[in-house]
Amino acid sequence: MQVIARIESDFKEKFGIPRQSNLVPSLEALVVFEKAYRDENALRGLEGYSHLWLIWGFSEVKQQAWSPMVKPPKLGGNKRMGVFATRSPFRPNPLGLSSVELLGIEKLPGKGTVLRVAGADLMDGSPIYDIKPYLSFTDSHPEARNGFAEALKDNRLPVTFPPELLERIPQQKQAALLSALSLDPRPGYLIGREDPYGFAYGKYDIRFVVKEGVVQVFDVVEGQA
Amino acid sequence: MQVIARIESDFKEKFGIPRQSNLVPSLEALVVFEKAYRDENALRGLEGYSHLWLIWGFSEVKQQAWSPMVKPPKLGGNKRMGVFATRSPFRPNPLGLSSVELLGIEKLPGKGTVLRVAGADLMDGSPIYDIKPYLSFTDSHPEARNGFAEALKDNRLPVTFPPELLERIPQQKQAALLSALSLDPRPGYLIGREDPYGFAYGKYDIRFVVKEGVVQVFDVVEGQA
Repeated sequence: MQVIARIESDFKEKFGIPRQSNLVPSLEALVVFEKAYRDENALRGLEGYSHLWLIWGFSEVKQQAWSPMVKPPKLGGNKRMGVFATRSPFRPNPLGLSSVELLGIEKLPGKGTVLRVAGADLMDGSPIYDIKPYLSFTDSHPEARNGFAEALKDNRLPVTFPPELLERIPQQKQAALLSALSLDPRPGYLIGREDPYGFAYGKYDIRFVVKEGVVQVFDVVEGQA
Repeated sequence: MQVIARIESDFKEKFGIPRQSNLVPSLEALVVFEKAYRDENALRGLEGYSHLWLIWGFSEVKQQAWSPMVKPPKLGGNKRMGVFATRSPFRPNPLGLSSVELLGIEKLPGKGTVLRVAGADLMDGSPIYDIKPYLSFTDSHPEARNGFAEALKDNRLPVTFPPELLERIPQQKQAALLSALSLDPRPGYLIGREDPYGFAYGKYDIRFVVKEGVVQVFDVVEGQA
């Protein structure tokens, strides 16, 4: 398996990333090709597609033996499900699958021709193994039954973000951050606790607590890019 | 990358297989787990989903150096497109991606617990690397623009299949065969020629010509299973 590209995203660590693609459609990222695959010809015809598939690697997963069951965080972290009934990163082959919207194909200094995409759920630097066009007539099943994930899909919490903190974040990155926070990024097994949490978003550290079902941001600290 | 399962399908060779999943929704196949992954617990919760993703390998592709452009057969075999704008098997990492309908989870003698699926476009024996539940709220984009594939999606030819030949095929396998034939399985670069072709479907060799835009079956030969 060759790494053909890597994602450049504002999410620098696993914590805080939306758990599926398209949950935060305003979240932009770049697909930057590795030098050996930096060839515009490989993208010829891609501009006609609105959506793409990324097949990528959960790079932070250090796999030991595979486990047939996992504890999905959104089920509270104590209920076990079969690994093939989940999109958990802890699977025999730690492959991720994400559909993203193709916003543009751009030439950037030092990066070659990149893909600007929206809705990705990949951590910054994740390796990408394949890019395919999304075909609505084979890939789209709006009527599909979602199993135990159905009950979880609209689980969002209200977010309070003091305006004087929010304005520290570049305006075009605010909506995605608010949306990601509303998904309640806490690990399932800690839900119910009111500890403060923090995650890196771009060059900012976003600090919040969850109290009485509300995600409350209490600080934004600018760190290193 | 571990092979976790293999497909058991009536298509024993590459020629004749539908070029995408779901083009022949009546086509049934089995996902048979490798012994090391034959554990019912890994499927717990899967029964609630109607569709699955298979990430699999184009096992017949002997990859040399990667080529940035490929000639999609359905474009006539002489027009070149960027490999990432196609679902061609000839790509840097020869991974296939197919959504299939989950018809049932069954225990079969000597095979353990298998998945009965419909709509797969995998050759018999293809290695499967991952199985994920299809999530309609992240994976479904019925409005997606299909680029140059849009013009090709409904390209079907009429099929003539003499009844005395068709009745040699088990009844429950007839509809899928007729649908696969209507997709005109000839390689793009040979379209326009009236040579006879044949492909293996189950234990049958299906022989046909294409004349004046009609797929005409002229023989069905029973061979070895």
